[in-house]
Amino acid sequence: MNYIFSDKMNALAPSAIREILKATSQPGIIPFAAGNPAPEAFPTDAIQEISARLLRDRPVDCLQYGITEGFSPLRGRVKADVRARLGIGTDADELIITSGAMQVMDLATKVLCNEGDTIICETPSFIGSLNTFRSYGVRLHGVPMQHDGMDTDALEQALQREPNVRFIYTIPNFQNPTGITMSAAKRRRVYDLAQQYNVLVLEDNPYGELRYNGEPLPCIKSFDEDGRVIYAGSFSKILSPGMRVGYALAPQPVIAKMTVGKQAGDVHTTMWAQLLVDEWLQHYDVAAHVCKICDIYTAKRDLMCNGLADTALRFQVPAGGLFLWCELPLEIDMIDFTKRAIAAKVAVVPGSAFAVQPEDKINAVRLNFSTPTDEQLVQGVEILRTLI
Amino acid sequence: MNYIFSDKMNALAPSAIREILKATSQPGIIPFAAGNPAPEAFPTDAIQEISARLLRDRPVDCLQYGITEGFSPLRGRVKADVRARLGIGTDADELIITSGAMQVMDLATKVLCNEGDTIICETPSFIGSLNTFRSYGVRLHGVPMQHDGMDTDALEQALQREPNVRFIYTIPNFQNPTGITMSAAKRRRVYDLAQQYNVLVLEDNPYGELRYNGEPLPCIKSFDEDGRVIYAGSFSKILSPGMRVGYALAPQPVIAKMTVGKQAGDVHTTMWAQLLVDEWLQHYDVAAHVCKICDIYTAKRDLMCNGLADTALRFQVPAGGLFLWCELPLEIDMIDFTKRAIAAKVAVVPGSAFAVQPEDKINAVRLNFSTPTDEQLVQGVEILRTLI
Repeated sequence: MNYIFSDKMNALAPSAIREILKATSQPGIIPFAAGNPAPEAFPTDAIQEISARLLRDRPVDCLQYGITEGFSPLRGRVKADVRARLGIGTDADELIITSGAMQVMDLATKVLCNEGDTIICETPSFIGSLNTFRSYGVRLHGVPMQHDGMDTDALEQALQREPNVRFIYTIPNFQNPTGITMSAAKRRRVYDLAQQYNVLVLEDNPYGELRYNGEPLPCIKSFDEDGRVIYAGSFSKILSPGMRVGYALAPQPVIAKMTVGKQAGDVHTTMWAQLLVDEWLQHYDVAAHVCKICDIYTAKRDLMCNGLADTALRFQVPAGGLFLWCELPLEIDMIDFTKRAIAAKVAVVPGSAFAVQPEDKINAVRLNFSTPTDEQLVQGVEILRTLI
Repeated sequence: MNYIFSDKMNALAPSAIREILKATSQPGIIPFAAGNPAPEAFPTDAIQEISARLLRDRPVDCLQYGITEGFSPLRGRVKADVRARLGIGTDADELIITSGAMQVMDLATKVLCNEGDTIICETPSFIGSLNTFRSYGVRLHGVPMQHDGMDTDALEQALQREPNVRFIYTIPNFQNPTGITMSAAKRRRVYDLAQQYNVLVLEDNPYGELRYNGEPLPCIKSFDEDGRVIYAGSFSKILSPGMRVGYALAPQPVIAKMTVGKQAGDVHTTMWAQLLVDEWLQHYDVAAHVCKICDIYTAKRDLMCNGLADTALRFQVPAGGLFLWCELPLEIDMIDFTKRAIAAKVAVVPGSAFAVQPEDKINAVRLNFSTPTDEQLVQGVEILRTLI
């Protein structure tokens, strides 16, 4: 049979990169291409204890249908937590629990964008989010990244020129793939421009808790006096990605529409996972756990950065997150380097995977330091050094 | 702020019914409006044992990222199970694990339909699926239900007349909301018509295992010689809906596109839930468990049907599933009856909630017999009798 697929899904086919990434899951390969938490970063004892208790004392709550907005106690607890910790959320905001933060991007696009509408995003940016946007047939307009976050002058030009812009997508903290943190001044400017041009902001903050040095900067959501910022948070990096628990904090009318969208998608997020996160937030020392994993990742980041410090690779040491963005000298071709690395059993991601438009000029690779063991980090860095 | 939402989401607002349904979640109300499994139908001991073992022996597998297609051993096990039990699935088919079966409807629509395309479905039909289709801006064309399933002559006319039909959506077993089971002859005819008019079939079978009398009939998927049937299965009704584990069995190119769609949606289904289902299928007597819950639901169905047998409500005793569809005599207005029932503390769903088009003539209510306790069943039936 000849299958005819929707135009929006046919548009979603960066196949060359997908082929390269497939090679990165070969057994025996050093995983600098992934974005997984380190296995030792999971609070396994706590999860075992909480799960046993929940399934013993409240099995029906874990197994029965739940409401689409999410488990009410968890929603209240996360709202209180982000208000206390990040100063975000007003009485005009609501919160929905999602099946991972990726679903926030999915639902935001679904409820806000018609096909052909425009989303402005950083370039390069997280390939997962870009593909989610593309899967709704929207136009993406990329704004170049600078050392302190997106080029806000280019953002203003884009807001002036691009038709039907619905929102600005940004990862202000330890951006994926560049590791860059947006300055406080630029965060303010992004909000002011959104206000001036009457668009929304989708602030994606999956790595915010993973800061290894420097002081936290205010979320764009913390400036949100008129209800134009959708904030996406996640438990994937501090607790477990396999649980698929994230959330959106946004103005009530937006959350109401996202709830209708989620009902039509997966009805609700796995109840066991929601109850488990709720108990963990309530009864465990989350701050101490985050400190512990930050220590693990700081050491891994330093192993990688120190090992590559005196090479031809140019990089900014990320103040947090999971990724190191290495620009290659002109004489080294990104795709060729990636293939040679994979042949030498080190998986890296070519920077072009994160390009908003195919013509974006990128000659870089993204390295991840959270997934490999310390031994793999040392060994992988050594191999990359021989290839440069 | 004035929020502008996408056209497809704005189209999705059957608000009168949603208001009625809200009233059904009041405390103290007898739940004939829901569709939840009975709490005593959960294999709680098995789940406790499996979860404890998994989190002790394989915590990282439960907590780390997984692949979008689903946990490989589970995919293989479900493929083998449906082939042995239902005779469906060929070497040209693949299987994807989804976050509940609703996500199958979501992904099928996403990958197959452009806005404005047509889906043919039974009317009345499951409101959840209808809303999922609507959320993609597709046109729905309803084919009336008869006592032995959809009117296949009307189906043929629709296939002749409707433009851009992408697939036929059907729930052949114990349909929601009517409880009707499609005859073997009509199943064959639906497939033959799909072949003749070159469209796909989306066969939704969430209740198939819950048969209380009569012999199982062949799935439409079992006729699928040329790869045009997408089969949606679920563990919600036989294990736990709160886990959100379903699956699609479909031709490999369709599953490949659905995988790209799911990656852009929720990345993958909660790993703990996938591993738990896999262990349950492998180590427990699932057939015996299904027998046990069928006994529970047979008794509940009979309580409800016997209690309403000599009233003015007209119904066909469903051979399985969770729902009883009661047609009201002309002198009783459905909406008025629903409101009076809710006022008398019995929640029922007005049949119009399941209409494909607002003008579909329906004067019926849907009653659910799996959620209420036996005491609530007796009491609720008594109250309804006084209202008729």
